[in-house]
Amino acid sequence: MSRCWNVSRPENGHSPDVVWQYSPLSRDERWDALGHAGATIWFTGLPAAGKSTIAGAVEQRLVSSGRHAFLLDGDNLRHGLNGDLGFDEQARRENVRRTAHVARLLAESGAVALVSLVSPYISDREAAAELHASAELPFMEIFVDAPLALCERRDPKGLYARARAGELAGLTGVGAPYERPRHPALVLRSGEETVEAAVERVLAELELRCMGVPALER
Amino acid sequence: MSRCWNVSRPENGHSPDVVWQYSPLSRDERWDALGHAGATIWFTGLPAAGKSTIAGAVEQRLVSSGRHAFLLDGDNLRHGLNGDLGFDEQARRENVRRTAHVARLLAESGAVALVSLVSPYISDREAAAELHASAELPFMEIFVDAPLALCERRDPKGLYARARAGELAGLTGVGAPYERPRHPALVLRSGEETVEAAVERVLAELELRCMGVPALER
Repeated sequence: MSRCWNVSRPENGHSPDVVWQYSPLSRDERWDALGHAGATIWFTGLPAAGKSTIAGAVEQRLVSSGRHAFLLDGDNLRHGLNGDLGFDEQARRENVRRTAHVARLLAESGAVALVSLVSPYISDREAAAELHASAELPFMEIFVDAPLALCERRDPKGLYARARAGELAGLTGVGAPYERPRHPALVLRSGEETVEAAVERVLAELELRCMGVPALER
Repeated sequence: MSRCWNVSRPENGHSPDVVWQYSPLSRDERWDALGHAGATIWFTGLPAAGKSTIAGAVEQRLVSSGRHAFLLDGDNLRHGLNGDLGFDEQARRENVRRTAHVARLLAESGAVALVSLVSPYISDREAAAELHASAELPFMEIFVDAPLALCERRDPKGLYARARAGELAGLTGVGAPYERPRHPALVLRSGEETVEAAVERVLAELELRCMGVPALER
């Protein structure tokens, strides 16, 4: 783990005159004071695959044990930070880019950032991973893998039905592609395992990746 | 304080098909588990007025006492989340809008978000305040008030010198306006009081605004 939180200064193409402001706190001082490390857990998968359900349950377990965790739900961010973005490919990429930056800030702050976002393109998810790697922050890509037919049967928001009826263009899985992760940290098969079982696996993996920091209370 | 964190669903003009995802955790459950409330403290003022110095010192005090706090420094955000933005008026507004959203997410998560950002326009800062008010989250606008001549003498990044030499257009205070806050929660005169004294005043005001949550250890 880095000894200093200011290791990374990513893209800054439009602000060449902006000087980096150093923090008086090192990452170690921050995380030591809070008693735990920060990390980002990125849940990707088709709409209705179960990402937000599992991520929300992980968040609840972490917060209940006194650990700072926060769910960045892709849908909710589109009501706020990303409310200015549409759904064409460029807008989707910008949606992922911003979300990755917010997750990194949360992780840097010592929280566990839980991202629940379709994020259909491998290159975008790799960019999110790289953003964390360049700052030496733990990052786990978790593939919530559910067959399209199952997602369509669930369809809690009625999106698939509307896409099939021709009322909603570009829904991932129907009118737009989903690129499956190549090397995810975990694959959760939400049609075959309970939410509780999935949560246990995520927490075990998190603990493994944040070894050396205080163990999570289970 | 709100009993539920899902009270606010702001602008969503480009995503009418996106459905709000409810969290299994209420704000109270979250803040109770963490032992403290979230809030945003927004430092505004001229370049080199002392915003980041004071905000960083407040952050250090909070984190040292085990409280989750994080400094969103305007310059640093321009190396990441806001690295795609320039300095014309529209870009500056978008810079403030995004920063306000990230601060709100941090506050919602239970952290104290410390924003250090010139944010020269009253309307943008009011929008940031309103974003928090609509979610019933504590928000303090703090005006770091230093005379332009003093900021120019300090000029740690050499920006004023370059602006005066005609090499840097649109620097707030020289080539672009700064609108002074009308009703800030606090005015810190960085030319007349020490950083330590300013920090004490900020912490006292924060404690006042987050009454009913565990007192800050000083």
